[in-house]
Amino acid sequence: MTTGSQNGLDTLAEAPSYSGAMAVFAGAQAEVVHVAIDHEGLTPDELEETIEELESQDRGIKFLYTIPSFQNAGGTMMPQQRRDRICEVRAAHPVLIAEDNPYRLLGFEGQTARAMRADDENVVYLGSASKMFTPGLRVGWTVAPDSLATILCLQSEAPVLSPSAFAQEVVAGCLEKYDWRSVLDEYRVLYGKWAQTLMDAFDEHMPDGVTWTRPEGGFYSWITLPQDVDSYDLCMEGIDKGVVFVPGTAFSTDCRGEYEVRMSFCHPADGEIRKGVEIFTTTLKKAMNA
Amino acid sequence: MTTGSQNGLDTLAEAPSYSGAMAVFAGAQAEVVHVAIDHEGLTPDELEETIEELESQDRGIKFLYTIPSFQNAGGTMMPQQRRDRICEVRAAHPVLIAEDNPYRLLGFEGQTARAMRADDENVVYLGSASKMFTPGLRVGWTVAPDSLATILCLQSEAPVLSPSAFAQEVVAGCLEKYDWRSVLDEYRVLYGKWAQTLMDAFDEHMPDGVTWTRPEGGFYSWITLPQDVDSYDLCMEGIDKGVVFVPGTAFSTDCRGEYEVRMSFCHPADGEIRKGVEIFTTTLKKAMNA
Repeated sequence: MTTGSQNGLDTLAEAPSYSGAMAVFAGAQAEVVHVAIDHEGLTPDELEETIEELESQDRGIKFLYTIPSFQNAGGTMMPQQRRDRICEVRAAHPVLIAEDNPYRLLGFEGQTARAMRADDENVVYLGSASKMFTPGLRVGWTVAPDSLATILCLQSEAPVLSPSAFAQEVVAGCLEKYDWRSVLDEYRVLYGKWAQTLMDAFDEHMPDGVTWTRPEGGFYSWITLPQDVDSYDLCMEGIDKGVVFVPGTAFSTDCRGEYEVRMSFCHPADGEIRKGVEIFTTTLKKAMNA
Repeated sequence: MTTGSQNGLDTLAEAPSYSGAMAVFAGAQAEVVHVAIDHEGLTPDELEETIEELESQDRGIKFLYTIPSFQNAGGTMMPQQRRDRICEVRAAHPVLIAEDNPYRLLGFEGQTARAMRADDENVVYLGSASKMFTPGLRVGWTVAPDSLATILCLQSEAPVLSPSAFAQEVVAGCLEKYDWRSVLDEYRVLYGKWAQTLMDAFDEHMPDGVTWTRPEGGFYSWITLPQDVDSYDLCMEGIDKGVVFVPGTAFSTDCRGEYEVRMSFCHPADGEIRKGVEIFTTTLKKAMNA
């Protein structure tokens, strides 16, 4: 058990990838080498090339960090065939995979994919109650190979001593006695509706030269801006005007993402989403004409 | 807010001192220089000498870690005069104090002492609900100088993202609506009774050549064994026989404590304490005669 799923990670990572994981890697002074994603997530060919290049330089690889389902920040869903291919690449090299999979059950149509861990014991699976129930509980879990389990427990002992038994009891009670699958069904429909509202508003208001991902689950859309707009400045301007999003540079350790932003649709309701997009696109258009 | 009070520390420390803090310092690759305690806790003169020696070697000191009330593992209570003297030493040198004070309200007679933080703003205070309510909530707090507050928040973000809002609500509700002072009164009386049972059993069964601290609060007594008994071997033997205690070497980073152990009396009831002491002393006598 972990205090949220944050507390279980160290260095290959997708780009873009979860900003919180990047902060953990930076804190551990890990060197992160990024592998780009496309519309189906992590690209196996580029992964294999990167591993082979690092091996040729005699650089040890701790593990590959990946979010296969409804990726944060890209919003992409990795198809089964690609998961299999990535596990094959892993098996051909002495590399562990850290599969961070908190959005797994949040496909808008109920679609899921097999956890990579299910097919490969050398995958460390990170799960979380934060997206299924509520983030405030801070309950996560790690499924690790036997050879790593004791080390991971000891490693998590120093920073947090032990995860909350009380919060674990609450989650265990929910899983046992509560119809959590129906609640998840409601969440999925709600998130799907909000995602659609966001897409409709983008289609209506977004200026030419801007592209974005169309998520089928999860919380995020990844927006690519024209290269004359600095996403960090745009975010600061957006905050002043009342809309909050995250500059793309937060999702890698090598400064890429300067012209990209992550937009989340998991909290504001429809009306706020529409209003937010209007503020965003007005601010963006001003920046493009500046 | 922190996830327990574990999540707030980095290197002067008492010896013995809390094993969990030692693990955090080791994880941060901090070099810990120990200052011995006597029956009233940390000794100001040795502290000042140690600081001056480190300064003369141009070694920077991050902070002094101290548990002033009912110290873990010594069980000692630092008198007010000594707290004042330690704050004077601090003020004369550019050293922060980390005051870890979870047992503050657990004096068996209700006796308390002022937090060092109350008299000195350059003290970082670490509090915890673990000893007052229940360890399973994992709610702690840090009172820090303004100059450190933002850094501490950012530092705790990477490993745990955020402490549980749910557990914080439970603690806030207890503090506001519940007569927690009466509950603490009950706890204090109970712990005092168990401590007395432990002392009585020690007085009755402990072989000559063994000494121990007589706690006035908190959870622990610190036992000094004859120097022909290895405390680690004794602990392993004790576990086999059914009594658990912690070898003294866990409470420092420099291997001292080889002939000492920490005994906790905060969980087992009277009958178990008596039985535990009988097992302990029988095992110890065997080791002394081996």
